[in-house]
Amino acid sequence: MSDEKDEMIVTPFEVRGILDYDRLIEEFGTQRINKKLKERIYKIAGDRHFLLERDLFFSHRDLDWVLNEYEKKNPFIIYTGRGPSGHTHIGHLVPWMFTKWFQDRMKTRLYFQMTNDEKYFFNAHLSLEDVKRYTYENTLDLLALGFNPEDTYIIQDIEHIGLLYEIAVEVARKVTFSTVKATFGFDNSTNIGSIWHPAIQAVPAFLHSWIYGRNTPCIIPCAIDQDPFWRVTRDVAEKLGYYKPASIQCMFVPGLKEGGKMSASDPMSAVFTTDTPKAAKKKVMAAFTGGRTTVEEQRRLGANPDICSVFKYYNFLFMPDNKDLADIEHKCRSGEILCGECKQILAPMMMEFLEKHQAAREEVKDRVEDFSASRLRDDIRK
Amino acid sequence: MSDEKDEMIVTPFEVRGILDYDRLIEEFGTQRINKKLKERIYKIAGDRHFLLERDLFFSHRDLDWVLNEYEKKNPFIIYTGRGPSGHTHIGHLVPWMFTKWFQDRMKTRLYFQMTNDEKYFFNAHLSLEDVKRYTYENTLDLLALGFNPEDTYIIQDIEHIGLLYEIAVEVARKVTFSTVKATFGFDNSTNIGSIWHPAIQAVPAFLHSWIYGRNTPCIIPCAIDQDPFWRVTRDVAEKLGYYKPASIQCMFVPGLKEGGKMSASDPMSAVFTTDTPKAAKKKVMAAFTGGRTTVEEQRRLGANPDICSVFKYYNFLFMPDNKDLADIEHKCRSGEILCGECKQILAPMMMEFLEKHQAAREEVKDRVEDFSASRLRDDIRK
Repeated sequence: MSDEKDEMIVTPFEVRGILDYDRLIEEFGTQRINKKLKERIYKIAGDRHFLLERDLFFSHRDLDWVLNEYEKKNPFIIYTGRGPSGHTHIGHLVPWMFTKWFQDRMKTRLYFQMTNDEKYFFNAHLSLEDVKRYTYENTLDLLALGFNPEDTYIIQDIEHIGLLYEIAVEVARKVTFSTVKATFGFDNSTNIGSIWHPAIQAVPAFLHSWIYGRNTPCIIPCAIDQDPFWRVTRDVAEKLGYYKPASIQCMFVPGLKEGGKMSASDPMSAVFTTDTPKAAKKKVMAAFTGGRTTVEEQRRLGANPDICSVFKYYNFLFMPDNKDLADIEHKCRSGEILCGECKQILAPMMMEFLEKHQAAREEVKDRVEDFSASRLRDDIRK
Repeated sequence: MSDEKDEMIVTPFEVRGILDYDRLIEEFGTQRINKKLKERIYKIAGDRHFLLERDLFFSHRDLDWVLNEYEKKNPFIIYTGRGPSGHTHIGHLVPWMFTKWFQDRMKTRLYFQMTNDEKYFFNAHLSLEDVKRYTYENTLDLLALGFNPEDTYIIQDIEHIGLLYEIAVEVARKVTFSTVKATFGFDNSTNIGSIWHPAIQAVPAFLHSWIYGRNTPCIIPCAIDQDPFWRVTRDVAEKLGYYKPASIQCMFVPGLKEGGKMSASDPMSAVFTTDTPKAAKKKVMAAFTGGRTTVEEQRRLGANPDICSVFKYYNFLFMPDNKDLADIEHKCRSGEILCGECKQILAPMMMEFLEKHQAAREEVKDRVEDFSASRLRDDIRK
């Protein structure tokens, strides 16, 4: 049983087991983001980012090539997205925040895909109304981060299919069942919508090139479990006359419980952006930590931040300053601070974050349409 | 080799071998249209139709139920379509002409689907431009038959996907790869567009009910090779809250060569609506007949209209009057007429038909948009 629990499974549909990111890089065939590449990003961006510094964005495909093109005045577009199967949790915001930093520094366009068709195909318990409602709710969370409508286009698969279908049809003719079977583990019992969906998920990588009639590099910031989609997309890209999309991949933001990533399907494992600050505080106070069983033991031996979900919140989100993080880590390892005290530091940070985020969510409600990909229709080259 | 050639294969993608329609009815599980059912149609329609009289429309599913509902003032809609992989041949027009008669007599709405996505998925040699061009060309042929825009909605899959996708997504979640594998013979090498397409082909059966928010019976006139699509559609219909679509199915219009059906992929096997009358005459004069090897033999033994493609043209299209048909059949069987003479009767009929049809094709060119399914967008219930 222990073996089964520890076995690492990382697919776009399931992440479990103890995560070995070196092995993932090897198995997926991606590249590690090394020091040299980081420095190159910082130089072009004119800024550093703690998620890169801490190797939380740690893996890539063709990022160096994208930067070469950028320096040759062939700028790229950014593509990322979200499968709206439930409310957004704090973990979802991390790559979106990085995306915003990257977009701002690189002064480029973002296509953000809400794969509401995918979530309908893969979740028998969700209705079309559900996935549409979550699309809207998740969009509020995205926009609350401060994106600019000038450069941000939100694609809703079902609503904007008219914009996507022609490219998807071209992709789909180039992808066999063998390929999606091997890539995603599909089998005879998989429904034909799920089988089709990788074609739709490929589209935003090519959409800009298709609309404006000039081949444009694309980079996809995402959690590494999405990589199989981009392998399929990269396989067909050149056959259709497009560049292969590059990617920059992050680790999973861990949940409040032991192991795995935050999961919208387990409410206690994550703080949702729609949680009341009070409820969020409760979740923080109940979180799994790396603490010892007794106060005495902890004072003597210290605690273990490497497995602690509270520390991971600091690491991924709440302590972008390396000095703050080093300070709390030292206190933790030395036994200077107890887990309850440490949670008392995180809780108000979390509550304040949620209050601000929820206010921003309210504020963007009357501007959602300003970000719609339907604006692209007029741009389609004849 | 002879066995292979004779083996009957009837799928939406391939028809070959010697056709045994009784066996098809049994294998597909459809019903024969018997005399009683024909009389019932005639009574409601207030008219007879030679394609029913001659059992060329010979098979159905739930046609009796559709008529019951009709008499209970629950009228149906008609759905049929065309895969635009090439120019229309004369054989394609036969079920469309029947459809027009049925629509006129029943005073109901027709949804006509141009499955340009399907033809792109299944034909690696066709470009998107090709299938769009054939969609337009085939539409001219349809409209040249005199359909009325008030009651006729032409759906182009790629262009009107915005109208179709939401229903297709619902269908697709209910259909597994197992099902399409068993129904259409798909395998690991099938592309994911082809696998997806049955969901799109199901949509027009439900579209009217979906748009207007009331469950409406649907009947599909088609050649019997399309039945597998409707089996899949019928399987999901009730799960989605719709009636199962009924169908009324015809035999294949045979080609000018021996055996099989007319095929757009073999130009000599068929007269295309875009052929010049002169070229069509040439094809008629070269057609396969049921004649004898010498004049003497034919005078003595007569010829065989059962295998003659010239006779089949009379039967399916050019001699709707049973007396004319019986007369030519008698002359053929008795040896009174030679095949060359018989072709000299068909040729001017064909030429005149084409001249009129091509004039009508020209005439409808500036009215194509009047038939577009895009008009339905405003009707979608909120």
